[in-house]
Amino acid sequence: MTDEPVRLGIVGLGRIGRFHAANLFGRVPAVRLVEIVDADAGVAREQSRLLGGVAWSTDYRRLLEDPEIEAIVVASPTPYHAEMVEAAAVAGKHVFCEKPISLDLGRTYQTLDAVREAGILLQVGLHRRFDPDYRAAWQRIVAGDIGDVYLFRTSLRDMRPPPLEFLKGSGGFFADVTLHDFDTARWLVGEVEEVTAVGAVLAEPRLAEMGDVDNAVVVLRFVSGALGVLDNSRSAGYGYECSSEIMGSKGTLRIENNRRVSVQSLVPGEVRQDFVHDFVERFADAYRIEMEHFARAVRQGTDPEVGGADAAAAFVIAEAAKRSHLERRTVRLSATSKDGGVFYEEVG
Amino acid sequence: MTDEPVRLGIVGLGRIGRFHAANLFGRVPAVRLVEIVDADAGVAREQSRLLGGVAWSTDYRRLLEDPEIEAIVVASPTPYHAEMVEAAAVAGKHVFCEKPISLDLGRTYQTLDAVREAGILLQVGLHRRFDPDYRAAWQRIVAGDIGDVYLFRTSLRDMRPPPLEFLKGSGGFFADVTLHDFDTARWLVGEVEEVTAVGAVLAEPRLAEMGDVDNAVVVLRFVSGALGVLDNSRSAGYGYECSSEIMGSKGTLRIENNRRVSVQSLVPGEVRQDFVHDFVERFADAYRIEMEHFARAVRQGTDPEVGGADAAAAFVIAEAAKRSHLERRTVRLSATSKDGGVFYEEVG
Amino acid sequence: MTDEPVRLGIVGLGRIGRFHAANLFGRVPAVRLVEIVDADAGVAREQSRLLGGVAWSTDYRRLLEDPEIEAIVVASPTPYHAEMVEAAAVAGKHVFCEKPISLDLGRTYQTLDAVREAGILLQVGLHRRFDPDYRAAWQRIVAGDIGDVYLFRTSLRDMRPPPLEFLKGSGGFFADVTLHDFDTARWLVGEVEEVTAVGAVLAEPRLAEMGDVDNAVVVLRFVSGALGVLDNSRSAGYGYECSSEIMGSKGTLRIENNRRVSVQSLVPGEVRQDFVHDFVERFADAYRIEMEHFARAVRQGTDPEVGGADAAAAFVIAEAAKRSHLERRTVRLSATSKDGGVFYEEVG
Amino acid sequence: MTDEPVRLGIVGLGRIGRFHAANLFGRVPAVRLVEIVDADAGVAREQSRLLGGVAWSTDYRRLLEDPEIEAIVVASPTPYHAEMVEAAAVAGKHVFCEKPISLDLGRTYQTLDAVREAGILLQVGLHRRFDPDYRAAWQRIVAGDIGDVYLFRTSLRDMRPPPLEFLKGSGGFFADVTLHDFDTARWLVGEVEEVTAVGAVLAEPRLAEMGDVDNAVVVLRFVSGALGVLDNSRSAGYGYECSSEIMGSKGTLRIENNRRVSVQSLVPGEVRQDFVHDFVERFADAYRIEMEHFARAVRQGTDPEVGGADAAAAFVIAEAAKRSHLERRTVRLSATSKDGGVFYEEVG
Repeated sequence: MTDEPVRLGIVGLGRIGRFHAANLFGRVPAVRLVEIVDADAGVAREQSRLLGGVAWSTDYRRLLEDPEIEAIVVASPTPYHAEMVEAAAVAGKHVFCEKPISLDLGRTYQTLDAVREAGILLQVGLHRRFDPDYRAAWQRIVAGDIGDVYLFRTSLRDMRPPPLEFLKGSGGFFADVTLHDFDTARWLVGEVEEVTAVGAVLAEPRLAEMGDVDNAVVVLRFVSGALGVLDNSRSAGYGYECSSEIMGSKGTLRIENNRRVSVQSLVPGEVRQDFVHDFVERFADAYRIEMEHFARAVRQGTDPEVGGADAAAAFVIAEAAKRSHLERRTVRLSATSKDGGVFYEEVG
Repeated sequence: MTDEPVRLGIVGLGRIGRFHAANLFGRVPAVRLVEIVDADAGVAREQSRLLGGVAWSTDYRRLLEDPEIEAIVVASPTPYHAEMVEAAAVAGKHVFCEKPISLDLGRTYQTLDAVREAGILLQVGLHRRFDPDYRAAWQRIVAGDIGDVYLFRTSLRDMRPPPLEFLKGSGGFFADVTLHDFDTARWLVGEVEEVTAVGAVLAEPRLAEMGDVDNAVVVLRFVSGALGVLDNSRSAGYGYECSSEIMGSKGTLRIENNRRVSVQSLVPGEVRQDFVHDFVERFADAYRIEMEHFARAVRQGTDPEVGGADAAAAFVIAEAAKRSHLERRTVRLSATSKDGGVFYEEVG
Repeated sequence: MTDEPVRLGIVGLGRIGRFHAANLFGRVPAVRLVEIVDADAGVAREQSRLLGGVAWSTDYRRLLEDPEIEAIVVASPTPYHAEMVEAAAVAGKHVFCEKPISLDLGRTYQTLDAVREAGILLQVGLHRRFDPDYRAAWQRIVAGDIGDVYLFRTSLRDMRPPPLEFLKGSGGFFADVTLHDFDTARWLVGEVEEVTAVGAVLAEPRLAEMGDVDNAVVVLRFVSGALGVLDNSRSAGYGYECSSEIMGSKGTLRIENNRRVSVQSLVPGEVRQDFVHDFVERFADAYRIEMEHFARAVRQGTDPEVGGADAAAAFVIAEAAKRSHLERRTVRLSATSKDGGVFYEEVG
Repeated sequence: MTDEPVRLGIVGLGRIGRFHAANLFGRVPAVRLVEIVDADAGVAREQSRLLGGVAWSTDYRRLLEDPEIEAIVVASPTPYHAEMVEAAAVAGKHVFCEKPISLDLGRTYQTLDAVREAGILLQVGLHRRFDPDYRAAWQRIVAGDIGDVYLFRTSLRDMRPPPLEFLKGSGGFFADVTLHDFDTARWLVGEVEEVTAVGAVLAEPRLAEMGDVDNAVVVLRFVSGALGVLDNSRSAGYGYECSSEIMGSKGTLRIENNRRVSVQSLVPGEVRQDFVHDFVERFADAYRIEMEHFARAVRQGTDPEVGGADAAAAFVIAEAAKRSHLERRTVRLSATSKDGGVFYEEVG
């Protein structure tokens, strides 16, 4: 007999929440979606209609009280993440939480303490780790195929900036955009000891007033001595892109997966190919696979591969990048082991 | 409220049957897999174990007698297809049947008559029509983006020949391999009026004794005047490939989707990229989407996009190719409308 | 001391003649262009002006009479080729002649006899053999890297048909377009024993009245058992293309060199790349290198790699393709050794 | 009548000098190579033998005294550049000089003064400006095709470090490697106002003792507000690479030209393609075209597109990068117009 599907509820049915819910309902065999929650009754009701009439409510506490539910997916707005994760911990429900846990680092650590004390499992939505392309690259690095890493290079870009309202609550460019790259850098190469960031306002002038940027380059120095370079943009114009390169002493890996479909169109004098538009399109498989991973972790009682400490680490590096940009200097970091995870802090 | 999932049973748990079953169990929200059947009890029991303990048996007639089951998927060996489709028709169950319906054309038409009389829906497993790449190309052709089609070119190749035992019951090279290309040609360009085939035994000498080939080139002339050229191989060596080109008066489309993952590996003096190994890997999405299409057709009571007449048409063209190869001459075909479908016959 | 440059004259300053002359003047160190000839004095004078004031005339016999000149390049219209090659042979000048030697096979052989008797060297303008890409593929085939060849596939396409006037004197589609592919097929794979051609008039209806075609597919069976498939078009629309594939038992080679420059342009939702426009652009290097090869052959007194017998062989295969197309049947060929070259004839 | 070829001499027949000489002898119609010079008589004699017996000597002053010679190419070791350019200026000969003019900035300016006073033309060997790919990109940027530039990104990498002896006299990583990127950045985007560099010793530990690095990332801020990011390596291992991207408000350009030949090799499970090995292979066309450009400038009496001020500017930026790396801080630059060129200095 295979394992019983993991019984899940989800709270937060915005863009990413709806995407998760659609996967959880009938696309991930290892889970069963039991109830969906959104503060807006109309939204919850409509999603229930699209998802085979699954139970819905406007109060996520119903998920915590339902003894049938083993785990919850937190896809609500960022300000609610910490509170919901803590409440789930108290209720003994495992949690998959979208990143970041909090825009306040102290609050993040407080939540991680609650998780640890309750002994629940926590996976954070750093989906890139589950993308088949990045996964294949990671496996080759771990297998020693490329030898020592010399350089990690990555480009992460959105087609156009999100609405100003969103930007105001985003935590800033480095915490909202670059954070995924910081996690990828740690995953593929190792811990970071130095961050140098240079940002610019190029496409959305109102960001300047907010002290934020829309394009940036970040240089990392890893503890191993390797260098990292990340360029990010909110205004790439041509599409969404997430491409990476890991150059090593024995080989170099490149990850590019930008095609919408593998169809070339040849017109007079030109070949054309559609470019991927957004992260949901680019990472559709990764979003599904991270849920499969979470379900397996819950059923087997093992730690998810990417947890709260990873989210906190990426957040600390993002804050250091912000400081580096504002103070026009390199910021040094220290990464130490603590409670079985990594613990980052700025040291200069 | 969304539509109720279509309640399905599947018969035949060989390689492709297991692949379908895995999709039907938890990866296609629009269906619910109710029971699985294989003549080998051990196989059926083991698959049930992998599929959450779904009901299983060794007799497909149980599917037909179960009032809860609306449709069945026939993935048994080819010699059973016609009989099972007919029995399903009598029982009023809709059918998804792997191709071909029969290696005997008369028997195929007899089965289609039974389907028509019973008023059930029949979809045939010509999965390429549901591949997102081919679909996107088809949409552009239909939209007139490439103008009049001048040339359809396609390569369909397996890495190595299947076991001789399989080859003996395969219906021959053109019916087993090229058939998919004939369907694609009809779908993308239109009806065919002339077939010229040249085959060769190059990799598996024992095929010569069976009067079969392992490599072939087929030239088509379409009713529209366009030309088609298909090359097929059972011994490509480097991998599985299904690549196509449609050259038109206003533009040309190319479909290539051969990467296992989008990771390039650079070693001294060379860039390397993994190539797809087999059709299951290449067409994983298509196999899932064809089931979604079937479920929608059943729920909405509409004809599937690819049905029995299409399977028969491709089979007639395949037989004409075989004759062309053996008699070293061009074979002419006639395609007429009949019973709402197309009806092909050789005319010279 | 390096070898003295080969002193050359050229006759015929049409499109291809001008292109050769520009290479011979200052781009091929191993030659020195001594005199240029065109029947049109204005053309010859203008080209002389562009080529540093090199001597010019309207009578190619001046080249033959000039004791300083060692070799001539014949780039005049096809009807003059045979006569000029023969006159050069009599004068003891080595010859580089554009293909074909003649549209009449008997005349071709008569010319080759004259060449042999005079003991001059003759190279024919089958430039693809000197393209660095095709050359690299050929070297790997010869080195055994791909094992036994199973399939040779090639696409040769022009953007749009040449003027009708040109087409009338072109020798027909197979002799004008496919001929290069027939030579490439022989060079890369070996001798051909069976030709099956299917042509169509799709873009230029007036070709039908001339009994010619503008698109065709040709299937070859080689003596080795391998298959070949060639598709050709005068109306590809998107650009010029010459792409090939050689599939073997141990590996497969693909040759594609279609970029004008290696610059990608990304615009919203799309990646674009310029496609090569014509053969002069695609084969610029090959045209230069074939002249270097000719100069070396002359200076060293060795046979050029591609000579009169190769031109005749490709022409016989082209005529067989024409017959196959018109008579709708496969045509068989015989290739035998004769006078140190190959000798092709139809045998059924 | 076309222009008379420019009569040239070359001094310095090391690797790059020999490469230039081979182009100048018979591959650039607009020039005539009159005499070659190398301090080593054996080298000069041997090259003369390979170049049709062209006159040779061991004293470059012979070139300056020869009234027939109009211009000289300086490809001697860097320490001789300034002296030779100045001597040529005094002799009234135009000069093409390999970069850098001097590793001492004061000496560089002194030489530029001598050039200006003598009124000779000076082109510096920043060959990338003449590469057809980079040229095509530059033309599109200038034409406004990509709108405002947001980001310039480039990778410049060698397969492996040169001998330690060479490295000692190279001027350091930023002046030897990155310099080409600084020139490209100025050419494609505009003047630079801020440089932040982070270097590392990863492949050749002995560089650490020399205070040099073998890998680095440099971030630029342009006067326009755009960002630039350059990664460089002496130890890429897989090959030589020079790839760039220019992201703009209306479009993005990518330049990649890494193929040795356009032949793909497919072996079981993998596609392979040869990667370019070194800069001579990658930029073969650019080296020839820069000489054509120089000859045209000399004949027409116009300033070459890339002259001494450009070389000095790139050198100042390289020095700023070195300082940034060593002092772990951003360095600010000022670029002003002077004597018809640009004049860079550090300002903080």
